[in-house]
Amino acid sequence: MSETLIKPDIATQTINQLRLLANQMITKAGSGHPGIALGAAPMLYELYANQLVVDPAQPNASNRDRFVLSAGHGSALLYATLHAAGFALSAADLAAFRQPHSKTPGHPEVGVTPGVDATTGPLGQGLGMAVGMAMAEAKLHAQFPTVIDHFTYALVGDGDLMEGISHEVATLAGQQGLAKLIVLYDDNQVSLDGQRARADTADNVARFASYGWDVRRITDGNDLAAIHDAIENAKLSPEPTLIAVRTTIGDSGPYAGTHQAHGTPLTPAQLQALVDDLAVAKQPEFSLDTVLMDQMQDHIAQRLAKQPTPSAADLQAYLAWTQAQSLQPPTLHDNASQQAARTIGKITLQAVAQTWPQLWGGAADLASSTQTTIADSPLFAPDNRTGRNIAFGVREFGMGAVMNGIALHGGTKVFGSTFLAFSDYMKAAIRLSALQQVPVIYVFTHDSVTVGEDGPTHQPVEQLMGLRLIPGVNVLRPGTAEEVAAAWHQALSSIDTPTVLILGRGSLGVQGTPAQAQQAMTAGAAQIVAAPDASINLIATGSEVQLALAVSQQLPQPSRVISMPNLQRFLSLDQSKKAAIIPKDSAKNVIIEAGTTLGWQAVAGDDGLIFGLDHFGISAAPQAVLADVGLVAEVLTEKIMQDLGS
Amino acid sequence: MSETLIKPDIATQTINQLRLLANQMITKAGSGHPGIALGAAPMLYELYANQLVVDPAQPNASNRDRFVLSAGHGSALLYATLHAAGFALSAADLAAFRQPHSKTPGHPEVGVTPGVDATTGPLGQGLGMAVGMAMAEAKLHAQFPTVIDHFTYALVGDGDLMEGISHEVATLAGQQGLAKLIVLYDDNQVSLDGQRARADTADNVARFASYGWDVRRITDGNDLAAIHDAIENAKLSPEPTLIAVRTTIGDSGPYAGTHQAHGTPLTPAQLQALVDDLAVAKQPEFSLDTVLMDQMQDHIAQRLAKQPTPSAADLQAYLAWTQAQSLQPPTLHDNASQQAARTIGKITLQAVAQTWPQLWGGAADLASSTQTTIADSPLFAPDNRTGRNIAFGVREFGMGAVMNGIALHGGTKVFGSTFLAFSDYMKAAIRLSALQQVPVIYVFTHDSVTVGEDGPTHQPVEQLMGLRLIPGVNVLRPGTAEEVAAAWHQALSSIDTPTVLILGRGSLGVQGTPAQAQQAMTAGAAQIVAAPDASINLIATGSEVQLALAVSQQLPQPSRVISMPNLQRFLSLDQSKKAAIIPKDSAKNVIIEAGTTLGWQAVAGDDGLIFGLDHFGISAAPQAVLADVGLVAEVLTEKIMQDLGS
Repeated sequence: MSETLIKPDIATQTINQLRLLANQMITKAGSGHPGIALGAAPMLYELYANQLVVDPAQPNASNRDRFVLSAGHGSALLYATLHAAGFALSAADLAAFRQPHSKTPGHPEVGVTPGVDATTGPLGQGLGMAVGMAMAEAKLHAQFPTVIDHFTYALVGDGDLMEGISHEVATLAGQQGLAKLIVLYDDNQVSLDGQRARADTADNVARFASYGWDVRRITDGNDLAAIHDAIENAKLSPEPTLIAVRTTIGDSGPYAGTHQAHGTPLTPAQLQALVDDLAVAKQPEFSLDTVLMDQMQDHIAQRLAKQPTPSAADLQAYLAWTQAQSLQPPTLHDNASQQAARTIGKITLQAVAQTWPQLWGGAADLASSTQTTIADSPLFAPDNRTGRNIAFGVREFGMGAVMNGIALHGGTKVFGSTFLAFSDYMKAAIRLSALQQVPVIYVFTHDSVTVGEDGPTHQPVEQLMGLRLIPGVNVLRPGTAEEVAAAWHQALSSIDTPTVLILGRGSLGVQGTPAQAQQAMTAGAAQIVAAPDASINLIATGSEVQLALAVSQQLPQPSRVISMPNLQRFLSLDQSKKAAIIPKDSAKNVIIEAGTTLGWQAVAGDDGLIFGLDHFGISAAPQAVLADVGLVAEVLTEKIMQDLGS
Repeated sequence: MSETLIKPDIATQTINQLRLLANQMITKAGSGHPGIALGAAPMLYELYANQLVVDPAQPNASNRDRFVLSAGHGSALLYATLHAAGFALSAADLAAFRQPHSKTPGHPEVGVTPGVDATTGPLGQGLGMAVGMAMAEAKLHAQFPTVIDHFTYALVGDGDLMEGISHEVATLAGQQGLAKLIVLYDDNQVSLDGQRARADTADNVARFASYGWDVRRITDGNDLAAIHDAIENAKLSPEPTLIAVRTTIGDSGPYAGTHQAHGTPLTPAQLQALVDDLAVAKQPEFSLDTVLMDQMQDHIAQRLAKQPTPSAADLQAYLAWTQAQSLQPPTLHDNASQQAARTIGKITLQAVAQTWPQLWGGAADLASSTQTTIADSPLFAPDNRTGRNIAFGVREFGMGAVMNGIALHGGTKVFGSTFLAFSDYMKAAIRLSALQQVPVIYVFTHDSVTVGEDGPTHQPVEQLMGLRLIPGVNVLRPGTAEEVAAAWHQALSSIDTPTVLILGRGSLGVQGTPAQAQQAMTAGAAQIVAAPDASINLIATGSEVQLALAVSQQLPQPSRVISMPNLQRFLSLDQSKKAAIIPKDSAKNVIIEAGTTLGWQAVAGDDGLIFGLDHFGISAAPQAVLADVGLVAEVLTEKIMQDLGS
């Protein structure tokens, strides 16, 4: 607090040059979002100049403060500010805003731009990721107080706060008492289509107060001192803090205060008028005045120099803990045979929780059904930050975004579970896991119409194939007990791919060896029952592998049984590797999966048979539902024989 | 208010018999949710005995009060209450709770059970549908005040209120000032996994006050008079009302006040103990004491007898307006040629808005981009209920649920739009449109990587095929201007199927006649360019039809061009009809669609070629992105020729 800040007039000049720079980028690109760049520049300046403890030369340091621009359409302003602060973004990078494969894409992308902590743009999710980062910090800080001790900041707009996910993650943050989470709200009362009041009149400050947050209002978004003081106060607050900053969208520009400011690039003439209006000194193309930049970077360096560093021993302990891992899939005990997949999953989870100490996770209020509680560990809570079980609440989408934030933070591994049908609620977060290449683990149980009595609202049908469509996700539906263990191991070993682990209420068996299970993970499929002279290949996933085995025994012809826990992995193989699992002989391919059939043609081939269901299920006992949809061994056997006879 | 109520002791006996009846059903089924059945019985009783203006003999009357059990797991209690109130649900129906194809499925399903107004279970969405019903009422009441004038009630639990969608729809209801929406909150402080405070400590009453709702608290969920008075007051309030009723989950049962009460059926012994504890008189199996039932039904009949009825002329005017429709697709003007699909969509929307007066809709704060504003009509707003444009706000999921509610209410046709990438946010609502068979219209624009500079967060890749997987949805991606017109017409003409209308930024042309476009809707596909001796069938959707046309012109071999706006419809045809569009000659099938390829094998066949993209796009200008992913005519032509040459 006693810190000396850059003089206000210099700060204002810097801010105005940031405004211009961001708009030069947008105008050159011919698209982008001037409104937030003009309105939110003072907040970005305050964060990078005076608050964020991040060394621009080490933008991935474990203990840096995190910043998530949840209003990701403010990317140009963020890039301009990162450039000014000394991150590795050159004027040429800024000039390449929104050009192919540049370091300055249309919305912030983690891994692409130094200093960008999260991929944002899909509204609301950035706030969720910030909450996840703050949770990870709280956990790690409790265990390694000298190594991890930092704040998490986010900037949100009206769009973020209208999204439902903002409710989910902000209530979670309130319940968790995430004191080191500080959210700036760009409260400009305008959204893309017009004044916010056309669609939304909620009092967001009162709302966040009802969530248990510390709340503050700033009436003038250009009042640097007020923004600074509010953040300094927020750092002392025992609750997460929302600072609502009343700004003018498109401040000082031609469309100030109107929704046209949101996405209309300025013309060159309008840009020049802005230079004049703001009385900005001439600045180099796609950069800032050197003196201003030097001053800002010196100021940042002075701040950073005062930061404590952990001892080598503490750092070593932290690294050892975060990197501990088992090289082998867990060994299943005898009691793993012939049980529901989710139960085998539970046994496996307990095993891997021992060998991966950094694993934590939870469920969207379904832990007792998804069986994903880590034994002998309490809930992660304000008064117990070592707990490995997270009560995510009935907040599927929020859970996904929070998991993404936890994974982006680093240092732990996280899983989250719900029923497969409700993966629909969090699809957008799963996509963002894939886009950000974070190795989060989704555990979706109750994976087919065998959900039974709860009926079609709770019975997934199309979700299984739908998840496989998302690029860069490992969708695993293990078909044997050993495959469950291998799938968990693969998920934990992943460093850049999210995993969706799909487990059912139906029974699995212990067919197949650990080696076969390992092959099924590597190749996407493995033969569970071999038959050199087979006339039929029965290909199934999950609990339908048991159904395939039953059909195999009923068929008079010899048949192979193939478990295919990872369809996409199998399809990515070259022809010879595929043929090693599904021989290119004259055998007919028969697919059995209790879900929509579109997509399976890629394995079945033109002459294959596909058994699934392309309609919703019914409310009845699981076996009655399977009978209703014809997924019983006798029916399938008869149909296959009819087809072969014809 | 001066109304005489059933005497309190009789009411209490009835409530206790409802509690028992619901639990008998659950115990017999061996699954279900006793907690809410025991805790919320007084609220259900009050609603059906004293509030809801619904004739049990006419459960689909246009002007009935609506009731949505958003906490759908309370189905047993709802069915028991409907039975007691005189709806067509027999004791035998109740005994068949959760049995195959019964009228009493595990969660309420509209169309299956008389008196059930919405399919619920997926949490939060019921509240959204109630908001939609109240919006439909507000609109229709303004236009037909004597015909439509009713309240909409909902019952929500903690799970509903933790879901983000509750924020979206409750803020919308607050902004819209939906005075005739009354929500009872079963505030029992317990959710499936335990005490609510483990995951959520939000003050929901203060929260809804911040949304502009009238809020009330009732401290004892068994205080019938307090519940009655609160609802009577709510009916007078100019705002939507939330009544937080503090109840005990599993009230009077063996697990009262704990999360075990949520989903643990009582044993027969526990059921008997409940009879003793509640001092309930002996009641017939799967029914209530006849005297109690008669009294309740007489009381309801007396209330209903006092209701006004509209004049025949008013009713006729209402029916004429709601049923007005065009029998032909709109005729496109000359200016429709070679424009972006969304622009052709805009022209079409203006045309159908003229011939379908009951059409209204809007966007999730993207109307200016999706081009879905109905010209010459204001916003639907508290001070203008005739407006045909809805500002849904940045609330995709909420928009979907509200649309479902509007459609369930009846009397209007509704559409909602956003970018295709953000359909992810509302997937669960689209599924519920399908499950409920409501003909809502989703308009998703910006339908591929041609979104361009906004980058991969905004570029749909997997969404197109993903939506096709949902059973019972018409996914239409028109490939010509005439197909856009035909698609809108098909969407408007649908009475039991939701439509997803997918439009892009890419140009469409005027290839094909209105008749061909009509065929493409009926059969899912149509030849745009015929070629009897073709060696290649180019099959494409949306703006990729233009790409296919360009490829066709570059190929030295003759080729057909087929637009396939509805893949699922095409796949449902019999072989001869398929062959009429894609002849079974030796021509190679080549698919072109700027999305994930899995699924297209069903059309391409084993020897076909599929061009799409199975990875995320990049931030760059649309043409640069298409070049980056190889979706340009020259590249495709060369690849096809290479394939044919090999």
